[in-house]
Amino acid sequence: MPRLRPFDIRPGRGDPDGEMAPPLSHTIEIRVRFGETDPYGVAYFAAILDYFKRGMDEFLRSRGLSPDLAYRNPKRNYGFPVVATACRYRAPVRFDDLLMLRTRVVRVEGSGATFGFSLFRTEAGKDILAAEGRISCRSIDASWTPIPLPAEFINILSAR
Amino acid sequence: MPRLRPFDIRPGRGDPDGEMAPPLSHTIEIRVRFGETDPYGVAYFAAILDYFKRGMDEFLRSRGLSPDLAYRNPKRNYGFPVVATACRYRAPVRFDDLLMLRTRVVRVEGSGATFGFSLFRTEAGKDILAAEGRISCRSIDASWTPIPLPAEFINILSAR
Amino acid sequence: MPRLRPFDIRPGRGDPDGEMAPPLSHTIEIRVRFGETDPYGVAYFAAILDYFKRGMDEFLRSRGLSPDLAYRNPKRNYGFPVVATACRYRAPVRFDDLLMLRTRVVRVEGSGATFGFSLFRTEAGKDILAAEGRISCRSIDASWTPIPLPAEFINILSAR
Amino acid sequence: MPRLRPFDIRPGRGDPDGEMAPPLSHTIEIRVRFGETDPYGVAYFAAILDYFKRGMDEFLRSRGLSPDLAYRNPKRNYGFPVVATACRYRAPVRFDDLLMLRTRVVRVEGSGATFGFSLFRTEAGKDILAAEGRISCRSIDASWTPIPLPAEFINILSAR
Repeated sequence: MPRLRPFDIRPGRGDPDGEMAPPLSHTIEIRVRFGETDPYGVAYFAAILDYFKRGMDEFLRSRGLSPDLAYRNPKRNYGFPVVATACRYRAPVRFDDLLMLRTRVVRVEGSGATFGFSLFRTEAGKDILAAEGRISCRSIDASWTPIPLPAEFINILSAR
Repeated sequence: MPRLRPFDIRPGRGDPDGEMAPPLSHTIEIRVRFGETDPYGVAYFAAILDYFKRGMDEFLRSRGLSPDLAYRNPKRNYGFPVVATACRYRAPVRFDDLLMLRTRVVRVEGSGATFGFSLFRTEAGKDILAAEGRISCRSIDASWTPIPLPAEFINILSAR
Repeated sequence: MPRLRPFDIRPGRGDPDGEMAPPLSHTIEIRVRFGETDPYGVAYFAAILDYFKRGMDEFLRSRGLSPDLAYRNPKRNYGFPVVATACRYRAPVRFDDLLMLRTRVVRVEGSGATFGFSLFRTEAGKDILAAEGRISCRSIDASWTPIPLPAEFINILSAR
Repeated sequence: MPRLRPFDIRPGRGDPDGEMAPPLSHTIEIRVRFGETDPYGVAYFAAILDYFKRGMDEFLRSRGLSPDLAYRNPKRNYGFPVVATACRYRAPVRFDDLLMLRTRVVRVEGSGATFGFSLFRTEAGKDILAAEGRISCRSIDASWTPIPLPAEFINILSAR
């Protein structure tokens, strides 16, 4: 498989792509569910990645794209699997907390796109950053060979 | 929270700590289960992180440490939560595939430790790298303030 | 442990408690998420039980009760764990389907309460029953011994 | 959909099919994993159903049948989805507990089969029943219409 440039998440630097135009973003609410905690009552770290995926689904839907078709379109011999994830956990969130998840596009290039996520909980009227991370996906054909991102998908990810 | 140095996963460079003495490692088998796949029959990317956690549990057990006590010891006012994860997905794995997961220690310093994971499936007698990643944990006290790693925990993670 | 009367789910008889006053109910929307499907793209049968639990949480919240306190209140030496579940799967639901889940109380007696669930998907304007089931919980003290349901909890479950 | 006879789980009566020849059974070990607990450190009730499914997979494998082919065989226009589940939770199990799960066939008839499960944890050398339950599956064709169980599948489920 060709290489994607590695991404790292630099704490405290803000969005590394922040110098450019402000990124597209979409925000949803997430409720921490009973089955998503670890034995100590804190949301399981792998569940946080699952929240990010939901944010990505809803971001795509907000741009007019069905998540199902975005991730695989057998008729077009096309898939868009996750190839990399990264997450930093800043503060614990617990069963039944109501969270705010902001999803944005941080990079679109060649065959890949990277989404960025910031998860907040609210305490005493202040938003506390609970986790931040990224998910990178790549366009592939039916043999899992990378292919350029479809033009209309680039438009959907970039248009304002 | 104090900053951990960011880690990145450089594809193709092998283990970045590989120049040092060969790292401690422990290998387990993982069966891809029915509820762990995405709608296309491929193991869900968040489930792979869950596999890594199991590898970490069994690594600790192989060193004589109960996973439960390693992650939280209320009597000692001690916790060891996950503070960062990263994963690269190299090749899809599917329902009922039998995988091999290798866990090793890649860094132990100050209040934190980082574990590295390589997940393989076997095809026609060859091991295919399916995913590789890292999980960083940090020692904290009951107020989630970082504290130095307990000396015996450093021994467990470093001894050969 | 004392015995609860077994419950069974009789298909086609409608709600067995339907002859009585119409049961309290509460309805929420559920989106089938990426990580909740089986390898064939159908919502995993154990995920459906998780949906029911969310319905129960939101039912309790709609009645003014915090789910967290409803399930365990250490100050009051009280817990309310799940002691039985049953589910019938009527029609498959798939990734990204938007479902409607109706939760109601079907029985409150002694130390236990049973909640009933009906999960629907909509197709061509018609509601299709996808699954129906029950969850029974029981009041216990810190030693897991059954205790009578607290009076105010009975009120919450019964009041109209 | 045609009706299956409802099944109920009668506590304390033992296996309702126990008068017949002793049922085929298969036993596996299950480790309660970090992501499978509820906020109070007890294995989530929906995770127990997932354990049952694993027991069913391994039962089929022990009889020479690949779980993947058992549940869906597109070449033969055949599927075997779960149509009903029931479970009673007898005693809590916790993170890192090592459990024993016994799977057996309790009924094979027409288009359906029912598997029974008993989950134990060991304490002070004694086996404690933690949960018991059933999963019913049904043979269907590509349009989800019930079809008779294939003869060789009946053999696999019945032969001793």
